[in-house]
Amino acid sequence: MELPSKLLENAVNEISQLPGIGKRTALRLVLHLLKQPQEQTNDLANSLLVLRNKIQYCKSCHNISDLEICDICSNVSREQSLVCVVEDVRDVMAIENTGIFKGVYHVLGGKINPIEGVGPSQLNIKTLEEKVASGNVQEVIFALSSTMEGDTTNFYIYKQIKDYNVKTSTIARGIAVGDELEYADEVTLGRSLLNRIPFETSIKPY
Amino acid sequence: MELPSKLLENAVNEISQLPGIGKRTALRLVLHLLKQPQEQTNDLANSLLVLRNKIQYCKSCHNISDLEICDICSNVSREQSLVCVVEDVRDVMAIENTGIFKGVYHVLGGKINPIEGVGPSQLNIKTLEEKVASGNVQEVIFALSSTMEGDTTNFYIYKQIKDYNVKTSTIARGIAVGDELEYADEVTLGRSLLNRIPFETSIKPY
Repeated sequence: MELPSKLLENAVNEISQLPGIGKRTALRLVLHLLKQPQEQTNDLANSLLVLRNKIQYCKSCHNISDLEICDICSNVSREQSLVCVVEDVRDVMAIENTGIFKGVYHVLGGKINPIEGVGPSQLNIKTLEEKVASGNVQEVIFALSSTMEGDTTNFYIYKQIKDYNVKTSTIARGIAVGDELEYADEVTLGRSLLNRIPFETSIKPY
Repeated sequence: MELPSKLLENAVNEISQLPGIGKRTALRLVLHLLKQPQEQTNDLANSLLVLRNKIQYCKSCHNISDLEICDICSNVSREQSLVCVVEDVRDVMAIENTGIFKGVYHVLGGKINPIEGVGPSQLNIKTLEEKVASGNVQEVIFALSSTMEGDTTNFYIYKQIKDYNVKTSTIARGIAVGDELEYADEVTLGRSLLNRIPFETSIKPY
């Protein structure tokens, strides 16, 4: 794609490095910005710069936070002994939206993925192990996505912490509420049969 | 969507103002940037700032350009008397890619769209009229998209320049090369019949 201006080309190249955005979309976005007031571009650029340079992570759970210890970790009404292991901040937000979970989180920042060169040392696994070793954790819930990488990561962490006196669990896999059986994939349906629960449990209001 | 950090929220809000990008996509993009080296975000932000603050438009055709007069307008081998009216830089790029057009362009910067508050005065129509009035233009080719707004804009410009001694034309609408008739819409197929061309013309090599 030959662009008539070097400045335009630079901007398009930079934007098209973002995931899911190709050169054409990048050009569309840039031309949109050019039609908007200059402040919009300035605000956008500054918000990214400030975020990238001033970003902080909670020292306890590694979630993105504006404070040293995030609101969830510093909330005394949450059970500090119940730790839910998730991949990133989006998973924390998803679980928080349910309003069900009263424990705290541990954000790994990714999954073990040898193909993309992500090993255990690049993830926040060491601090989880220390947390468990300190004896203040009763249960660790694995809530990573059930992909090859998620399962590998779960298993790696499990091996690291299994000798400590700590319960480990994983979120239930099964047919989504409201879903039809006939459209469910075999693995999920199979697991939901194997891990069936007493009927009384399923009708208990939470 | 409740985000755990104000900085994150600002960045997500700014990005989600771009067309076609919602809050979820914005969050995904921001989290991607946070995982990349700091320079990438800096480069991205700076390229946008530089572009928005230093952008220049060709004084003749209003296309984006790094020079006062763009490469196309200053190219002596192009016919300055043949002016193709287009909406924006993307249309210029599309036509340039064909390698067929040897004239110059006039970039309107949009289409007349009363609903979005775009009137003729916000577009580069005055300068086109002046160009035509100067007597150096022999033919004006309308190459706007054939939407309600495009047709309105064509007609408005036509009314402005019709009293000058200038030929006006519009690009041919018809079935795309390689397309099957059965899948063509009725309007296009109908127009392609009305505006049929001598067979000898269609087999002439260009």
